[in-house]
Amino acid sequence: MRGAEAVGISVDSKKKEILVVGSLAYDSISTPLGKRDRTLGGSANYFSLAASLMAQVNVVGVVGRDYAPSDLQLLKDRGVRCDGLQQTEGETFFWEGKYEDAMNEAITLQTRLNVFENFRPEIPQAFRSSPIVFLANIDPVLQLQVLEQMEKPMLVGADTMNFWISSKRKELDKLIERIDVLLINEGELRQLTGTYNAVAACKQICERGPKFVIVKRGEYGFVLYGPKGYFVLPAFPVEKVVDPTGAGDTFAGGFFGYLASCTESLDWDHLRRACVKGCLLASYTVQDFGTDGIKRVQLTDLNKRLTDYLEIINYPKI
Amino acid sequence: MRGAEAVGISVDSKKKEILVVGSLAYDSISTPLGKRDRTLGGSANYFSLAASLMAQVNVVGVVGRDYAPSDLQLLKDRGVRCDGLQQTEGETFFWEGKYEDAMNEAITLQTRLNVFENFRPEIPQAFRSSPIVFLANIDPVLQLQVLEQMEKPMLVGADTMNFWISSKRKELDKLIERIDVLLINEGELRQLTGTYNAVAACKQICERGPKFVIVKRGEYGFVLYGPKGYFVLPAFPVEKVVDPTGAGDTFAGGFFGYLASCTESLDWDHLRRACVKGCLLASYTVQDFGTDGIKRVQLTDLNKRLTDYLEIINYPKI
Repeated sequence: MRGAEAVGISVDSKKKEILVVGSLAYDSISTPLGKRDRTLGGSANYFSLAASLMAQVNVVGVVGRDYAPSDLQLLKDRGVRCDGLQQTEGETFFWEGKYEDAMNEAITLQTRLNVFENFRPEIPQAFRSSPIVFLANIDPVLQLQVLEQMEKPMLVGADTMNFWISSKRKELDKLIERIDVLLINEGELRQLTGTYNAVAACKQICERGPKFVIVKRGEYGFVLYGPKGYFVLPAFPVEKVVDPTGAGDTFAGGFFGYLASCTESLDWDHLRRACVKGCLLASYTVQDFGTDGIKRVQLTDLNKRLTDYLEIINYPKI
Repeated sequence: MRGAEAVGISVDSKKKEILVVGSLAYDSISTPLGKRDRTLGGSANYFSLAASLMAQVNVVGVVGRDYAPSDLQLLKDRGVRCDGLQQTEGETFFWEGKYEDAMNEAITLQTRLNVFENFRPEIPQAFRSSPIVFLANIDPVLQLQVLEQMEKPMLVGADTMNFWISSKRKELDKLIERIDVLLINEGELRQLTGTYNAVAACKQICERGPKFVIVKRGEYGFVLYGPKGYFVLPAFPVEKVVDPTGAGDTFAGGFFGYLASCTESLDWDHLRRACVKGCLLASYTVQDFGTDGIKRVQLTDLNKRLTDYLEIINYPKI
């Protein structure tokens, strides 16, 4: 959003393409509601499955020889362009984790980077002009490398995690200066700012570069903060949360997917609507293991859930 | 709400009086933002200061000889009827506690029941017909004793805490069967139902008697659940939370105070508006130590904050 007015980006009558760089993975997940082995996961998958409901997604990442053709086909069937996916010798990124009790914390049991270990993002020429960029939670050094290859994107979003905040702080700080929207959970926001109050911490982040911060609060919803102030709403109430993995990346996919689908200048109204789309899509992700929830969602489902949601949050004015 | 239709209570053209039974206390509180010794506290004080902004409050409780006349005058100045306040030999209930970091948990350092130890609530004859009753967090045995003395109240609300859930479970279960609205925080709800998912736990509570459950989520707001479904909203974003003590009782005061001020039959719209009043009044309580925040609030402040809040939670429809 460089050079644009306070909360808008310049008019663009076409729908916008999104570039996403992140992980494609197999996850073994155990929660109080069950267990799945080697289910499809990875930030780029959750993001792409959500965003592609509304926009053209171009994905960049790496998979191993074991990556199932049907898992690749899943993205292609949603119109996702996979020319930026490298398939190399070795196994696909693998994560094993579990959630206990209230499921508000993922406990990592095993991480095998595999082909991700030597991943260097190479953005295909055709993708370099994508006006919207989402840098999913990967090494900030790689996130910066992606930005170097892009041609003046209009809107850059990024996610990160505790591991990078502690181990690659300098690079992460550099990245944060160059992005428009930071998506982050509450623990990470605290770690990044040293401030316990999420409301105050958002202001601190925006003084470092980003115009907007989105705090992902899990079952409690989100906070969007920017020049126009705060927009805060709860998550859609889900009676049976099966697996929270990927909720944040799904949120990001819904958020940027909606923004990419807008044909007018983006303003505060668009950003607020985008948050709600992300939030509602995430509610589908948590209702099943891995990507199974978001895989099945259609835009009609999302619109129906939006109607229900607006009733749930409706303050009846006199 | 006995005998009334699903979410309504019978028409009553007069404003309704509220009876509250709870503690009046002196608290010594330490938080990351400072420390106060022997500041005015207690559930009945927070509740009464909030509810009296909108309705006639009748308070029942006990204080010691050390209770400052000015603290009693504070309630009287708000029109609160204090005929049910016993002043007995000994010292006023005293609590010392602290909050750390994110301040989402009160750590008790010292509790001196003092005059509260032998407290038996005696409801003055003039209070027994109060149509709205709030049983603040005291021994469920006492809460039941209050109900026995009341003449068919229209609407009964109650709060409780972990201590009673574990030590007086049978009496608490009996109480829960007899109330209309249970106000509870997430940890207590979990303890009471054995269910981690707040959404599912609300349904369980309503199968035991109450028509409505309000889950108090602190900085994340609240969930109201009842026959018409869910109403969920976040708290008003406060950049500087000074002391969270009393936020729940303030919420209850705002909730029942608003309902008492309504001159029509109460329906789902009234209940939803009542939650927001409670939630917003609580945002004043947490901005200062003890009752200092809620003491200063005027109805005009509340209405102004409501305008700001509705903008913060406003989903801009297309």
